[in-house]
Amino acid sequence: MDNTQGKRITMAHGAGGQKTSELIGEIFKKYFDNPHFTKDDAAVLARPEGRIAMSTDGFIVSPAFFPGGNIGELAVSGTVNDLSCMGAEPLYLTCSFIIEEGFLISDLEKIAESMADAAKEAGIEIVAGDTKVAGHGQADGVFITTAGVGVIRDGFAPSGTQAKPGDAVLVTGDIGRHGCAILLTREEEFGISADVKSDVAPLWNLVSAVRDSGAAVHTIRDATRGGVGTVLYEISEESNVGIRLDQTKIPVDPGVAGVCGMLGLDPLYLANEGRLVIFCPKEETDTVLDALRSRKNGEGAAVIGEVTDLNPGIVTLKTEIGSETILPKPGGELLPRIC
Amino acid sequence: MDNTQGKRITMAHGAGGQKTSELIGEIFKKYFDNPHFTKDDAAVLARPEGRIAMSTDGFIVSPAFFPGGNIGELAVSGTVNDLSCMGAEPLYLTCSFIIEEGFLISDLEKIAESMADAAKEAGIEIVAGDTKVAGHGQADGVFITTAGVGVIRDGFAPSGTQAKPGDAVLVTGDIGRHGCAILLTREEEFGISADVKSDVAPLWNLVSAVRDSGAAVHTIRDATRGGVGTVLYEISEESNVGIRLDQTKIPVDPGVAGVCGMLGLDPLYLANEGRLVIFCPKEETDTVLDALRSRKNGEGAAVIGEVTDLNPGIVTLKTEIGSETILPKPGGELLPRIC
Repeated sequence: MDNTQGKRITMAHGAGGQKTSELIGEIFKKYFDNPHFTKDDAAVLARPEGRIAMSTDGFIVSPAFFPGGNIGELAVSGTVNDLSCMGAEPLYLTCSFIIEEGFLISDLEKIAESMADAAKEAGIEIVAGDTKVAGHGQADGVFITTAGVGVIRDGFAPSGTQAKPGDAVLVTGDIGRHGCAILLTREEEFGISADVKSDVAPLWNLVSAVRDSGAAVHTIRDATRGGVGTVLYEISEESNVGIRLDQTKIPVDPGVAGVCGMLGLDPLYLANEGRLVIFCPKEETDTVLDALRSRKNGEGAAVIGEVTDLNPGIVTLKTEIGSETILPKPGGELLPRIC
Repeated sequence: MDNTQGKRITMAHGAGGQKTSELIGEIFKKYFDNPHFTKDDAAVLARPEGRIAMSTDGFIVSPAFFPGGNIGELAVSGTVNDLSCMGAEPLYLTCSFIIEEGFLISDLEKIAESMADAAKEAGIEIVAGDTKVAGHGQADGVFITTAGVGVIRDGFAPSGTQAKPGDAVLVTGDIGRHGCAILLTREEEFGISADVKSDVAPLWNLVSAVRDSGAAVHTIRDATRGGVGTVLYEISEESNVGIRLDQTKIPVDPGVAGVCGMLGLDPLYLANEGRLVIFCPKEETDTVLDALRSRKNGEGAAVIGEVTDLNPGIVTLKTEIGSETILPKPGGELLPRIC
């Protein structure tokens, strides 16, 4: 809008009438415009060139703006990354906004701009959307739900069930930054400050680089809610294998490590929004690392462990002093709550 | 769940760990199960047999349960109907839940069951989902966002831009019931009661019947937020035509008419969640009416007006006493707020 300064969302913006049209035209269409973007009931799209993958994710992060990103970037990246982990090239995205009455329109505009940037980076088109307004106090700022469609090329179909003994376990960068960044925005709650930025990013560029390297990748998963530790437990169960981590090899930003030390948290359980866990045969490790390290958001890729046929369903950790312990299995409510 | 009586949603149900898995397994998987339903990051689906349509809609209706339906049925029907109006056969649906801490799990189960029933009726598969839990007071009960993919067969592509002078304007049944039913749940606010049930329903059966009749249909749209009046104004603008309605021919349930009379509301602006507006050449009217009236939710189909080349962008109304007036153009906040 020409001047959104100080203007706020009203119930009329969600009523489906003229104010809704104005909001779509002046904010969403402005940033999301592409040949497929529709104000119609549904976007009409070409027939995909293969099997499709479909995914959805809802985002209720509070605060909506945090060091390193905002809820819009998160909502695009989350669904892009879910598709990417299935080996699906992201094609089309829908986004649905539930906005609290009184939300600043200038903040909504910043969010829309970030979504457009993230979508462009991922090569996904935002094709349809929806806007609802909840009364003051009936929602917390803004909630965004995205759904995405991607296309799967034959021959590349990583899955959580395909991890095999002898695989190397990789991460694409240092872990725990998103969870830590959100935690730090609640300074009044935790009483500490540190310079930590969220890792939020769309990661199709990394997955496509790995695919194009020709390496035989077994499993790719983004380590979001619950962090790397939770994701590794899921994969160990789905593939019925054991996983041995080497604590000294797990990359952790010094700021994140400091905060975790002060609060007694383990970075393995902090959320990431721009980090993948990748399983591949050991002999493919160098090919995969080379593919990752030459790309944005993959510079810090590292091998952190291996898959074994001992202790299926269990993740163990070789600690800094050389002893081996069982990584505690995550359960119940995770701290801090960041989604 | 074996016994959900009195059990409530906790923050742990949204944390992505074991409690989330339990909720998915015991509620969502129980009702949504089909070969494509995934607990993975994305569902993998066959290559569609044509161009695809993609749509999303968020639902924040309060109360979640109302006479004639609930938010789950609404969330499935809304997206099914958006796809159907584009002539797209509904194939796959994702659903994303944002649930307030403390929400009754037994109510969530009723909602999931209704969603499964509506999906089955529409022939759409629920293939992926997401669950987030917002703290008590940070969301209002439950919000559901659905996104859908449908497939478009060549030769059948109704659109809001295709209405033409000489077309008949049809509705598939009596109008205004959903808006009226929601209004009546707020008895304390409006001080009246009446026996009115929402018309919420998935309508692919009607659209496919019209398609299969071979009639040359120009426009199909579901008259949701803003009602038939708002939708007709949209179409009159998109197609640059005038629309003349005959008030005596507009079907309105006596209960809805009574409530509207008492509150000074016009059923033309009350929301529907199971009614279509259809434009077709006058000579096709009988074919379309026959196709509709033989199907569930189409029994009350009627011609309510015609398209003219006079007054493009304007909807006029021939009243009961024979005079012709301009239907007021909707704008701003609609009453009652029902979405």
